[in-house]
Amino acid sequence: MNLWGGRFSGKLDPQAWALNASLGFDQRLSFQDVRGSIAWAQALEKAGVLSSAECTQICDGLNRIRAEFESQAFIFQESDEDIHTAVERRLGELIGPAAGKLHTGRSRNDQVATDLRLWLMEAIQGLEAVLIELQSALVARAESDLNLLMPGYTHLQRAQPILLGHWWLSHFWPLQRDRERLHQVGAHAASLPLGSGALAGTAFPVDRQALTVSLGFSEPSPNSLDAVSDRDFVAEFLFWAALTGLHLSRLAEDVILFSSAEFGFFELSEAFSTGSSLMPQKKNPDVFELARGKAGSLLGYLTGLMATLKGLPSSYDKDLQEDKLPVFNACDTLMGLLPVLAGAVRGMSLHPERMRAAIEPGMLATDLADSLVQKGLPFRQAHNVAGQAVKLAAKLGKPLDALSLQEFQTLDPLIDSNVYMVFDPLQSIARRNVIGGTAPEAVRIQLQSAKSKLYK
Amino acid sequence: MNLWGGRFSGKLDPQAWALNASLGFDQRLSFQDVRGSIAWAQALEKAGVLSSAECTQICDGLNRIRAEFESQAFIFQESDEDIHTAVERRLGELIGPAAGKLHTGRSRNDQVATDLRLWLMEAIQGLEAVLIELQSALVARAESDLNLLMPGYTHLQRAQPILLGHWWLSHFWPLQRDRERLHQVGAHAASLPLGSGALAGTAFPVDRQALTVSLGFSEPSPNSLDAVSDRDFVAEFLFWAALTGLHLSRLAEDVILFSSAEFGFFELSEAFSTGSSLMPQKKNPDVFELARGKAGSLLGYLTGLMATLKGLPSSYDKDLQEDKLPVFNACDTLMGLLPVLAGAVRGMSLHPERMRAAIEPGMLATDLADSLVQKGLPFRQAHNVAGQAVKLAAKLGKPLDALSLQEFQTLDPLIDSNVYMVFDPLQSIARRNVIGGTAPEAVRIQLQSAKSKLYK
Amino acid sequence: MNLWGGRFSGKLDPQAWALNASLGFDQRLSFQDVRGSIAWAQALEKAGVLSSAECTQICDGLNRIRAEFESQAFIFQESDEDIHTAVERRLGELIGPAAGKLHTGRSRNDQVATDLRLWLMEAIQGLEAVLIELQSALVARAESDLNLLMPGYTHLQRAQPILLGHWWLSHFWPLQRDRERLHQVGAHAASLPLGSGALAGTAFPVDRQALTVSLGFSEPSPNSLDAVSDRDFVAEFLFWAALTGLHLSRLAEDVILFSSAEFGFFELSEAFSTGSSLMPQKKNPDVFELARGKAGSLLGYLTGLMATLKGLPSSYDKDLQEDKLPVFNACDTLMGLLPVLAGAVRGMSLHPERMRAAIEPGMLATDLADSLVQKGLPFRQAHNVAGQAVKLAAKLGKPLDALSLQEFQTLDPLIDSNVYMVFDPLQSIARRNVIGGTAPEAVRIQLQSAKSKLYK
Amino acid sequence: MNLWGGRFSGKLDPQAWALNASLGFDQRLSFQDVRGSIAWAQALEKAGVLSSAECTQICDGLNRIRAEFESQAFIFQESDEDIHTAVERRLGELIGPAAGKLHTGRSRNDQVATDLRLWLMEAIQGLEAVLIELQSALVARAESDLNLLMPGYTHLQRAQPILLGHWWLSHFWPLQRDRERLHQVGAHAASLPLGSGALAGTAFPVDRQALTVSLGFSEPSPNSLDAVSDRDFVAEFLFWAALTGLHLSRLAEDVILFSSAEFGFFELSEAFSTGSSLMPQKKNPDVFELARGKAGSLLGYLTGLMATLKGLPSSYDKDLQEDKLPVFNACDTLMGLLPVLAGAVRGMSLHPERMRAAIEPGMLATDLADSLVQKGLPFRQAHNVAGQAVKLAAKLGKPLDALSLQEFQTLDPLIDSNVYMVFDPLQSIARRNVIGGTAPEAVRIQLQSAKSKLYK
Repeated sequence: MNLWGGRFSGKLDPQAWALNASLGFDQRLSFQDVRGSIAWAQALEKAGVLSSAECTQICDGLNRIRAEFESQAFIFQESDEDIHTAVERRLGELIGPAAGKLHTGRSRNDQVATDLRLWLMEAIQGLEAVLIELQSALVARAESDLNLLMPGYTHLQRAQPILLGHWWLSHFWPLQRDRERLHQVGAHAASLPLGSGALAGTAFPVDRQALTVSLGFSEPSPNSLDAVSDRDFVAEFLFWAALTGLHLSRLAEDVILFSSAEFGFFELSEAFSTGSSLMPQKKNPDVFELARGKAGSLLGYLTGLMATLKGLPSSYDKDLQEDKLPVFNACDTLMGLLPVLAGAVRGMSLHPERMRAAIEPGMLATDLADSLVQKGLPFRQAHNVAGQAVKLAAKLGKPLDALSLQEFQTLDPLIDSNVYMVFDPLQSIARRNVIGGTAPEAVRIQLQSAKSKLYK
Repeated sequence: MNLWGGRFSGKLDPQAWALNASLGFDQRLSFQDVRGSIAWAQALEKAGVLSSAECTQICDGLNRIRAEFESQAFIFQESDEDIHTAVERRLGELIGPAAGKLHTGRSRNDQVATDLRLWLMEAIQGLEAVLIELQSALVARAESDLNLLMPGYTHLQRAQPILLGHWWLSHFWPLQRDRERLHQVGAHAASLPLGSGALAGTAFPVDRQALTVSLGFSEPSPNSLDAVSDRDFVAEFLFWAALTGLHLSRLAEDVILFSSAEFGFFELSEAFSTGSSLMPQKKNPDVFELARGKAGSLLGYLTGLMATLKGLPSSYDKDLQEDKLPVFNACDTLMGLLPVLAGAVRGMSLHPERMRAAIEPGMLATDLADSLVQKGLPFRQAHNVAGQAVKLAAKLGKPLDALSLQEFQTLDPLIDSNVYMVFDPLQSIARRNVIGGTAPEAVRIQLQSAKSKLYK
Repeated sequence: MNLWGGRFSGKLDPQAWALNASLGFDQRLSFQDVRGSIAWAQALEKAGVLSSAECTQICDGLNRIRAEFESQAFIFQESDEDIHTAVERRLGELIGPAAGKLHTGRSRNDQVATDLRLWLMEAIQGLEAVLIELQSALVARAESDLNLLMPGYTHLQRAQPILLGHWWLSHFWPLQRDRERLHQVGAHAASLPLGSGALAGTAFPVDRQALTVSLGFSEPSPNSLDAVSDRDFVAEFLFWAALTGLHLSRLAEDVILFSSAEFGFFELSEAFSTGSSLMPQKKNPDVFELARGKAGSLLGYLTGLMATLKGLPSSYDKDLQEDKLPVFNACDTLMGLLPVLAGAVRGMSLHPERMRAAIEPGMLATDLADSLVQKGLPFRQAHNVAGQAVKLAAKLGKPLDALSLQEFQTLDPLIDSNVYMVFDPLQSIARRNVIGGTAPEAVRIQLQSAKSKLYK
Repeated sequence: MNLWGGRFSGKLDPQAWALNASLGFDQRLSFQDVRGSIAWAQALEKAGVLSSAECTQICDGLNRIRAEFESQAFIFQESDEDIHTAVERRLGELIGPAAGKLHTGRSRNDQVATDLRLWLMEAIQGLEAVLIELQSALVARAESDLNLLMPGYTHLQRAQPILLGHWWLSHFWPLQRDRERLHQVGAHAASLPLGSGALAGTAFPVDRQALTVSLGFSEPSPNSLDAVSDRDFVAEFLFWAALTGLHLSRLAEDVILFSSAEFGFFELSEAFSTGSSLMPQKKNPDVFELARGKAGSLLGYLTGLMATLKGLPSSYDKDLQEDKLPVFNACDTLMGLLPVLAGAVRGMSLHPERMRAAIEPGMLATDLADSLVQKGLPFRQAHNVAGQAVKLAAKLGKPLDALSLQEFQTLDPLIDSNVYMVFDPLQSIARRNVIGGTAPEAVRIQLQSAKSKLYK
């Protein structure tokens, strides 16, 4: 069955049918389609298009269809072009010709946009939950590992000592921004297209404001032409997913590095590692590699959809049918990834001694320069002196803190015997006691702030 | 000059220098760099790192540098690695060794992130202005052309009659969403990295909250590691630009179509058209084609930046230097396009008679079906009857409204002589009087709503 | 079952298992996996690792598995991590412990790369066939429609008259380039990774050259580290698919335009059109819109895969598992699209009178200028004169060829009464008789050339 | 000056002019434009359109213009819309009205496509040279470092011992594929559009075959409509650049890792490292980070261009003007990167003792399993035994090769005292003596093969 046979004499070519049919993927919208149709039937009743009895009959039928979806008893037929057709076809089987009244004043153009928005608004709930799951794992680790020392890196070169708690939290905040953006995506999705008809608005006096409320949207779309072609919410969602993916790829890259034998800071639990079919000793960070790799795929969904939208004329074009798969795929990707990463984060064991051992004296060269600043030397000069100390130590083949006082003083006479105190990483960390800094006190405040985001 | 020579014995390879140097593009951050540095000097003074005299000296020097930028008297040197180096180098020339105190407790990592955020926050003002310029042009056209009839399309096939005012406004709302998103991009950019040092937070007791206020940001970044690597604001901006580009490409596609000889609805003014070097008769819609084409380039900026970010370890990596050019390019693209499109929209002349003539009776087939619905026929059947009428008319080689009553009645006896009234497009349009519909009353309300967005 | 349990005490977390398992999609490699395994078993026998009896036993088992795949009797188990595991597990069930000898000296890293290359090499055959199907349809149309006149466009503005046969062929040649590129993709895929082990090469004296021949590859991969991570062939294939998609989108855009009421050149057959659930009169070019839309999705597959590859360290990383779905999806997309487009092209009917009528005299302005060139006027001046004639005709509200001789001569006295001959579009077309030009003779030669490509 | 004023009364809006003008970037085509114009003038002469004297006059003028470009004496004017206009304008200044004859039968549509193809064909020479420069550096390193031992990785976990020479060569082969692809890009670019006119072919009897030869192309384009819109060569080039970028990003990622303190295998020379403005000790691998980061930008150029092409109607559209900047940018990026990477590779120093020390006994677990295979155990069982040995050693807190014979035999009685011989990494490497394997002999053969590619 299709919904548009009247003017046609022939049938669609079978391969063209297969290309055109969207039931294979849009059946994921089944509950939303039923829900939207019930609301539409009620709106038609209020508009005087359906009698009260007809409305009841239709809604009863739709509720039975919903029950069939729930119990997986609904039988799709090969001839169902899409989910809308399947539901209307089944409704006809259940309640007879009155089913034919449901589509009055409605088009699949406004219907499918409504369904997909509804679906996304629901999916966002689930996505926020798994985001919070990973955030919670990070916060829990930050709390338990707060005071462990580790090297901080820039350019993947050892830079300055930091607290492990600070590092864990550095992966919390991007996800917090993702949550905030997710709310905005949800808010933007909540503009109701239903009532826009095919493109020009419905010709029946439907109360679109009431419809908006009944379906949980925030406002009716302001322009029917725009409403049937607007896929901003799809692009926004896919951008959100791709950016979240980038954050996960960053966490993943760090964990993969820190779990290597060379860094040796982290050890993944066996529940979140896999082995090799050839090499018996291997324990691989597959789940983090998949997170990193899937960041690429998520970017592909965004790019593909936006390229599809580019250059389309306004109003509905069939090209827009390409909007669904990337949404479903992006959602599934993150729903699959986030809980696993949360589990892996929670299950990781640490080698604090290796982290501590990786803090070499050269990482305190900034502190050495800062100590000269305290003595009045302009920082630029102090930086130069400290740089020369690094060079001298390298030349002499010893750590920076093993230079003798005399050696130090050849570089700048301001240096005195207190110089050796700058090489205490705990002191270095404690000095960075500003908002967002790595000092224990600052990290504790940061942790409280993170927790407050979590539990609201 | 570079800012990091101390530990190095040799010099950078000249080709490596050229690859590494960013002055060629980051000099666009010159004012922001000076502004950020003045705020930093004042923060250092409050923190007791600079004396009041030193701070004054530094700020005076920086103000002179700003004046040099303003008067384009500032002379960059080949040896300036980047804008930060150029400013500090020049400051040294102007005020001597005290210049070396400015960089105390600061890194280029937090500095450049601050500069770019500041730049973007300012650029957003300009971008909103040009967005409004195009919105205003669309609103003005909607107002003056409100009641002109034209065919509405789906699948680029004639679908239903609409008002031209409705069509103009259908391009207003996407831009309104763009404006709202632009505000959010701006709000997200306003998290201050300064004070995060290289990665671990500054070691001097700087009041980051005060710094936040003084630079016009909304909050200090909560985690220093995150702060130096966070480029979410760049990705968000580039996504914003790419999505705005898609909206312009849609407007462009419509205008290119409507300005073709075959549609013949619009005629571009000569001030916004170009000719051919070979074909003397040509008048081409180049500016709209460029808008459509640049939508692709804008998507490229987004994709490129996000691919660059993918898989980076946390904290600062030099890869992040790739963030600036796409931001500048995307901004320039839209600053160049939007005013031109606004001018072209305002300058367009119309052929209302061609628009009206393109409304053929078949476009009222939905109204025909709806009239049968009014008589009690379920819509699905009514749709079928109307479809058969279309087929019959095609077979007989005449317009739909030229079918005789008898011919109509062979299809459904419910049809009576009132049927011919459904073919009045004005009536059809007037029936679509719901929120967002194309009825004149609804469009007038929509126009008021659009105006209210514009002037707030 | 998995292939790597020995060193592990615990079990993989169930969600991590689900994330990690690839059987859901890599089972499409089942035949290739069996084929590769048979070749490997034979290579192991030649290397003295398997006895002749063991090899026979293993190959018999693998052949039974292939038969099970063919008859769809193979039962996958939830615990099968991937297709390789499923095959080895089943082999064990069929032939007992000897199955455990198959994986000697092999890793899933070289195995999966081999499987995917094999799959692609086979898929390319099918893709070339459907490319040829569309090319054939275009050639058939070019032949039957060769001499029909139509307007040619640039900037979607009427430019110069052309032959419809020329236009059809303009969509043939991009596909011919696609075919040539497809051969190159196939040739590049034919580098055999098998024998590279996990990363370092197999430790058994396998004759990789013989293996190359037996599996139909052209050369063994030259470096084992490179071989297990090289996904150039995937990127090349996805680029090929995306570029082919762009060509289809161009054809689609043209057909959508030419099938609009405003152009009215083409009419799609009902077998390749669809209707509207709301508007009874609609006949929409959905299959062409889907072609245009899917061009975006194909670009997304390419971008996603390349972003996944970016920044990976060398040798095998699990991220590479993301390589399969885009390959399968891109292949399916084009296998679905191309035959439908071929059918739609063959089934299209034409309105030659509308095409002819759309050639307006202004389109001959270049010919007017050229006629002045023949009289010795430099082209730049002649272009100017013709441009002024266009302006004059527009001012007087008449077609260019309705200017009186006197009017023409006010613009340039060189113009004589022969001027009216330039307005014959057939003459204009005939003048463009160079290689690749639109003159009938040139198009006939072009058609012969196209045919010769087709049937080789 | 522009080339199309005749039919226009007014002037282009200044902002529209700025948007439309392409001189800012297409002046890079100046030499190609002159070269193409000289060939065109000669073709016009042969076609009888220009007299011999006119042709000489025009060619002399063009040669003077080329000389002005060479000496940078050419003065562009603000009113030059593009490079073609600038050249024709200057030609007029130099030789008078005869200049107006040059554009006879030619359009900027075929002209600019010819110019860009010519430019690219020349740029490819330079790109191959710098590719070879990096390949040569890799080969030189492979030769000098051939026999050094290092750990090979998969999943960034230590996997099996390999030779450093093998690793260097693993980065050679991708570049070799890039070179081969670059030749194909060049070959595909060599289809000559000139003579296609605006879209329909030139109306003058130009010998396009001769023109093809004279400009160094391989064939005239077969269809004029296709010729003016075909940007396959641009997409192919940008794909080539993006894929080459991915290979550089892989090399870069490896080098960044191996240069970290934790790996400590490589040390960058100071000539190819940079420091920190804050941290005096830092020596950062900026050039490799830039290579990795620019891989993202290169992908952006490809995506942007392909998105621009998507959905365009056939023949020339102004959108195509967006093709040039990505080509120039991609070329400049790689011309800048490759020599620097070559220098950095050559200048790197090594820590062979750290590489050797990173080979831990567990990496020989595959060899342990293989030794059991030699004794007749199926590999799958042998893998399990070896895996249990790894587990046992971990439990006992000792290296795998420190298990006592008794301990080994609890796992499998087949193990005898020869077991300790499998832990010699040199033996392990030597066993991988297949084509492409890491055995010294195989790597030497590989090196010869690589060299033979280099010097041909």
